[in-house]
Amino acid sequence: MSKQEKLYLTVGPSKLYPTVHRHTQDAIDLNLFSISHTGEFFITIYKKLNDNLRQLFNIPESHHILFTGSSTESMHTIIASTVEETSAHLITGGFSDKFYKAANDLGKKPIMLRLEQNDVLNYEDLDLRDVELLCVTENDTSIGLQIPLAGIQKLKEKYPELLVAVDIVSSAPVTEIDYSYIDMAFFSVHKGLGLPAGLGVLIVNDDSIHKARSLQNKGVSIGGHHSLVSLAEKAETHKTPETPNVFNIFLLERVTSDILGEAQGLSNIRSLTSQKAKLIYDYFDRHEKYPPLISGSYRSLTTPVIYTPGEASDIAERLASKGIIVSKGYKPFENDHIRIANFPSHTLEDIQRLLDCLESVL
Amino acid sequence: MSKQEKLYLTVGPSKLYPTVHRHTQDAIDLNLFSISHTGEFFITIYKKLNDNLRQLFNIPESHHILFTGSSTESMHTIIASTVEETSAHLITGGFSDKFYKAANDLGKKPIMLRLEQNDVLNYEDLDLRDVELLCVTENDTSIGLQIPLAGIQKLKEKYPELLVAVDIVSSAPVTEIDYSYIDMAFFSVHKGLGLPAGLGVLIVNDDSIHKARSLQNKGVSIGGHHSLVSLAEKAETHKTPETPNVFNIFLLERVTSDILGEAQGLSNIRSLTSQKAKLIYDYFDRHEKYPPLISGSYRSLTTPVIYTPGEASDIAERLASKGIIVSKGYKPFENDHIRIANFPSHTLEDIQRLLDCLESVL
Repeated sequence: MSKQEKLYLTVGPSKLYPTVHRHTQDAIDLNLFSISHTGEFFITIYKKLNDNLRQLFNIPESHHILFTGSSTESMHTIIASTVEETSAHLITGGFSDKFYKAANDLGKKPIMLRLEQNDVLNYEDLDLRDVELLCVTENDTSIGLQIPLAGIQKLKEKYPELLVAVDIVSSAPVTEIDYSYIDMAFFSVHKGLGLPAGLGVLIVNDDSIHKARSLQNKGVSIGGHHSLVSLAEKAETHKTPETPNVFNIFLLERVTSDILGEAQGLSNIRSLTSQKAKLIYDYFDRHEKYPPLISGSYRSLTTPVIYTPGEASDIAERLASKGIIVSKGYKPFENDHIRIANFPSHTLEDIQRLLDCLESVL
Repeated sequence: MSKQEKLYLTVGPSKLYPTVHRHTQDAIDLNLFSISHTGEFFITIYKKLNDNLRQLFNIPESHHILFTGSSTESMHTIIASTVEETSAHLITGGFSDKFYKAANDLGKKPIMLRLEQNDVLNYEDLDLRDVELLCVTENDTSIGLQIPLAGIQKLKEKYPELLVAVDIVSSAPVTEIDYSYIDMAFFSVHKGLGLPAGLGVLIVNDDSIHKARSLQNKGVSIGGHHSLVSLAEKAETHKTPETPNVFNIFLLERVTSDILGEAQGLSNIRSLTSQKAKLIYDYFDRHEKYPPLISGSYRSLTTPVIYTPGEASDIAERLASKGIIVSKGYKPFENDHIRIANFPSHTLEDIQRLLDCLESVL
């Protein structure tokens, strides 16, 4: 099997959106790697991308679209810019741990609100007095747990000063966000958007920026060149505080244009994602040895995780010998889970190929 | 004239190193955009890049090689991680101002040491009592001023606790750095290395990391996910704190391999750079209307700046109509200077084409 036919079902970077190679060739033809990020051509791309993201993700005017180097950076920027003392973290797995750790590393006093794997989440039970920011990992890629956001609306009514930041790193663009009660959300382009790694998108509202400014006025350090204030000020004029990853910004503009250009682009993607997820879960629910890790109702649509105790490396290798690459478990479960991406770039045929292959190797 | 024949003599991003398009095709063929940054293939690239950079830039074992998103970020990381109170900044132009501003934004107490355009620099005259870090912009791209570093050695003897950070953003790999007395140096890949934008390289020694750790132990915030400590800890195992710009890391590995593979690679590049710079300066020294901005001996080899008061836009447009793209002045001198890159990717023929073209349009 040639390299080109490898199927990347990894949880990101993953299989590319099918137009990426063509757009890469265009980038070369357009001298994109040589142009200035302050020139007219780049600013046109930036503006178009901004419009595309607003349309695709239904982002209202109250929210600004900012660019970072990664979602790890976005987590740090959110904490540094909007928390003086206390953030609360809904702990679901490795990536919510990472968000918590960011707060800890930045010298804040984060609180852990632990949700067990098959618990039901009741936002109204959370005690968030004196909490400035609630951090929610909507889809925790580490264990394939995807939690609902709807209850947050009532929380915001109960705690009107509370800000809420949602990690949609590995569920964008599939998850629908209602920005009327979500202050901040962020994702990376190398997951569901099917691009190369190296760019984070951070969506923040005026309330968040207002909080950052008030902390700044109090003399609190809100971050370096990438604070919410510095990023938002530059974004006003379609600029960035540094020479950015022009290539990825271009690719994201092109791919979001492609998705918007397709008939029923995103609604089609969403129904297909559910359909493909069902195929994967049905297969493993029937499997006698390897069940889905999450038995409750919060199963991830985009990153299902399968429980394969002590055998993940072996299974991944057997799949790799057939040209299918999946992710092993997130530390410390490297050998106990396999993680399978179900992103918009993955077709129904790709998932069928996986299932056929599993049939022959398991 | 077709788009492909455009000649980018911009000060970065600029003309690509000639092998970049080929390596981009390889990246596609190798599924580079889909691979994991924690997998074996990426770690092999990372290790090779590390070895290449050590060899090419003569970096001793005392110094670590770290990756950031940009040199703007490198400036902030250096200040946050090594300065508790006071940095001193040799102010030569817009980019040393930017380094100063980073310190100011981070709540430090930076000191300005101003060097006028045609002054001679005497490091021994600098009073650096109580200064923790001296920041030097070796080649200030804003005005094309390139200053010597040799005097720093004596300064380090006089102030043994002093750390020195050098911005070689637009002079690497041409400038030779003696790391025996330079603690930190940084550059971006979209200048002299001829790559697309989106990656910074930050070279720091054990003393700098030691300082960062001691600040951290005192409870000083030394930065978010990209402090010298967090970057250095990850770099130990050829990792990064986040999913990095894998494509640029790959391209940098390839292009540094190309340079190392050429007979007398870097020494050849250095002598050619001097030769091309001389052609440019000789032309403008003879020109009756547009002299080089710097009349003294600190003329930049890699980014000559020409004084064209009130006419920069017009001259840039006339050159653009012939397919040659140069940079206009750095703010606020947009219309008063043109800036011309003389990077390793620019051949003698490119410079000759520029001079011929200038002959016909000026």
